[in-house]
Order: sequence, then structure tokens, then C-alpha cells
Amino acid sequence: MNISEAELAAMTPREFRHMVRRNEWTGGSFQACRGYTQTNLIILPKDYAYEFLLFCNRNPRPCPIIDVTDIGDSHPPLSPEADIRTDSRKYKVWKDGELVDEPTDIIGYWRDDLVGFLIGCSSSFLWLFKAANIGFRFLGAFITNIQCIPAGRFRGPMVVTCCLFKSGYDAVRATQITSRLIAVHGPPVHIGDPAVIGIKDLCHADFGASPDVTPPQPGEVALYWGCGATPEVIIREIKPPLAVTPQDLDLLIIDPLTEELANL
Amino acid sequence: MNISEAELAAMTPREFRHMVRRNEWTGGSFQACRGYTQTNLIILPKDYAYEFLLFCNRNPRPCPIIDVTDIGDSHPPLSPEADIRTDSRKYKVWKDGELVDEPTDIIGYWRDDLVGFLIGCSSSFLWLFKAANIGFRFLGAFITNIQCIPAGRFRGPMVVTCCLFKSGYDAVRATQITSRLIAVHGPPVHIGDPAVIGIKDLCHADFGASPDVTPPQPGEVALYWGCGATPEVIIREIKPPLAVTPQDLDLLIIDPLTEELANL
Repeated sequence: MNISEAELAAMTPREFRHMVRRNEWTGGSFQACRGYTQTNLIILPKDYAYEFLLFCNRNPRPCPIIDVTDIGDSHPPLSPEADIRTDSRKYKVWKDGELVDEPTDIIGYWRDDLVGFLIGCSSSFLWLFKAANIGFRFLGAFITNIQCIPAGRFRGPMVVTCCLFKSGYDAVRATQITSRLIAVHGPPVHIGDPAVIGIKDLCHADFGASPDVTPPQPGEVALYWGCGATPEVIIREIKPPLAVTPQDLDLLIIDPLTEELANL
Repeated sequence: MNISEAELAAMTPREFRHMVRRNEWTGGSFQACRGYTQTNLIILPKDYAYEFLLFCNRNPRPCPIIDVTDIGDSHPPLSPEADIRTDSRKYKVWKDGELVDEPTDIIGYWRDDLVGFLIGCSSSFLWLFKAANIGFRFLGAFITNIQCIPAGRFRGPMVVTCCLFKSGYDAVRATQITSRLIAVHGPPVHIGDPAVIGIKDLCHADFGASPDVTPPQPGEVALYWGCGATPEVIIREIKPPLAVTPQDLDLLIIDPLTEELANL
């Protein structure tokens, strides 16, 4: 479908979801529905639901819970018109920790014991940096040596996204802006040296890498936010019989505005 | 035990818990351990744990989750020296929705399928109003006509605490201060007319009523916060086989400072 950047940004979540649902969209979701909430969708069997919800409560920076579907119900309470089985462009299906399929819908995998967890995504706040005229570059997401607080079977490292800011002042503004948005990861978890949190090379992201990354330049300041790719890394380790996660750039956009979910 | 108000305020959580644990304290917890986090403790069988945790996630103003014990473990991860079976002065034990006991410890009721949920309490922030020289009176907690968002079997009305502020400016300051403390209920859920949320008489609180309440005076502004007594009202309705809640003024004080849990 041929859509300009401005048209994409101006779409409502419902319009964008319907376009995705009809398999008419082949791009990512990052540029779509300016101001609306983008979510990382994690689907697990109910046997894992309590431990995962507790894990998210204990690790709200990488895994801020925005919404949870009722068991077997594919419609998120906060956005009931959405259907988590069809409204992301592409999914990753995991069986016993192995990636077994990357379908454009998961209707064939749906079962009445599945629960969908909608976790905030940093793409919800990148708009706000632009709106505040903050100079930044998004480098992608990185697996760190920060260990999440375990809950039951769920344990593993935190994934973070990294943005480089043009100046220290831009980094301060970004910290302020995200501090009031805890539903979409909240404030940064680290500032500065990537080696301190176990990141070897900011030019080679583990998720969502840009093909043309310029190394950090003098004067640039790196900020790191908890990332909703954390559950994927943990699912690979703990190997539940079935799990569904999003493709890096294909998020589920729900009806609430990011500002509606702001804590301040 | 004969302790001055200043000594009580200056105690560490560990000192206060040990005094309570030895049954040497007969007062409430509100004046104790200035600056530390006071929590409402709710204990439920694991069969109810997922639905209750989801209920708390859907209703973070009355039920902000600070900590959850592992199944059968009586020590909160954030405050491992504390023991939820002994460190509140007095408990309410509910069987099938009926209050059956008000013991000073629950060792005799403890089972290896129980889970403790530690929910924020407004007594954690009343210190901050005093520290900011804000003029206010605490009126107690009231059952409202605001319906919580259901989760599984958990459904029912929100309980709120009410404080009357001397002026509109004091009320604005109190709103600002609590907005950055979402672990202990966060910002108010209502300002002004009690009738709008179904409260008939601010002089007769449902929980923690003061015996000498003066009616609201001209110029005073009422603010209402979600209250950790909400689960008690719901437990009375949905009648789980076993539940434990706190006495109104007997909270569990944990090691983290309220400022350590602040979102800003």
C-alpha cells in the first residue's frame, strides 16, 4: 500500500490495525499513529501467566504492563476493537524456546488457555523527543549484563534500547520527558558508558539494528531504557511449550494515547 | 512500652518490627519510622494470586503493588528481614468472607500455599505534607460508588482516603507531591464534592475514623486517594476460603524509604 509518512503518522490506531489485519501493510509500526501507544505483545499459556505478571511487576522498566487479556480472549480490555491474533504485522512463534514460525497472524496457533500481555514500547515516546526538538539517534536494542529480578521460572538479562543525544542538555530533557511515562518504560536505567552494563559495541544492536550506524561522536550522550524485547530473550532460555512475541518493528498499536497513560 | 512521639518517628523499620513482633507495642503504625514505607498486607491462597495481582495491575490507585512474597514464603523480597506473619500488630482473618479472628500474629494460620501482597499506604506520604508545611486534616477512609476494573473473581467498589486541605494551594501542593509517589497510591482520584463519588458524610468514615471530626469548613478543599482497604471490602464480597488483611492502623513497615520507591 502506498502511503506517505505524513498519512501514516496521522492514521488512527483502528485504521492502522485494519490495514495490518488485511495484510496490506509491509512496513514497521514505528512511524504510524503519532501519539498513540505502541505495545510489545507477549502471549503465554495461562500456566505461565502468574509468574510472568509477577516478573513484570518486579521489573517495570523493561516490562511495564499496560494491559492483560482475559484467559482465552484475544481482545485487550483497554482497546477492545483490537485483536492480538491479527493486528501485528508479523509474529514470532516459539515452541520449547525454538523459533518455529514467523506468521502474519496467529489464528492457527490460538488456544483458549492463552493470555496476552501488552507491554509498553519506547517507540511511543520517540515522537515526543522530536516534538521537543531534541537531537537524538536511535541505535537499537542490546542484551545487557543487568539481571532482572526473577519471578518463578522467569529469570534472565535485561534488554535495553539506546539513544545517543546530541548534547547533555538534550539527554536531560529526554530523562525528564520519559520520567512521566512509566507505562512505556519510564526513565532511563543507565546513562553513559555501554561497557558498564555489558554492551560491547553500540554499532551492533541485538534487535532493531540500523544498517548505517555511525559510532558515538564526541559530545554525544548515551541513554538506555528498559526494552520490551526482554521477554523474548527470557523465553528463549526458559523454553515454555508455546509463546508468541512481536517482530522487532511490528508492534500492536492500541487506542489510548501515550498521554492518557502518562503518570504525570 | 513507653515511647515518645519523636522516638517512634526515629525508629528504623527493623526496630519497630521487632517491637511489634515481641507484642510490646499497642499503638498504631502511622507515627512510626518517619520516611519509611508503610504497606497494607493482603494474604490470599495461591489459587487467587493471579487474579488478585491482575486486579491490582488494573487498579493501581487503590492497589499499587510494592512487593509480593513467593508462594509459601513469609519474607517480602524487598525487605527480607520482615516476616508478614508477625510484624503487623494486629490482623483480620477472613474465612469465606466472615471475620473469624483478630490475632496479633498469624503463625497458626500460615500455610505453604499462601501469598502476601504488599500494597502502598497513604500513611507513607502524610509525613511529606507535614514536611512541606501543608495544612491538612485526615478524615479516614470511605467506600465509594467508583467501581474498580474487575479481574476474574475480584470486583467491587474503590475505597478512598480523604484529607481536607486548608486552601486550594495546599491541595495543589499535595497533588504534586503524591503524583511522584505512585507506589503509595499516587495522585488523588477525585477533588471536591464527596457526593459525586457516593460519600454521604465526611464526618463518618468507614475505616480509620477520627472520633472528633469537624465538618468541612469554608475554604477547605477535599482530596481523595485510592486506599489499600479496597481489598478488604472486596474480600467480604467474594468470600475466598481464607484471607488476611490488616487492622486499619496496623500496617507493615518495610525497609525501603518512600523516596526510594518514588517514580520521580
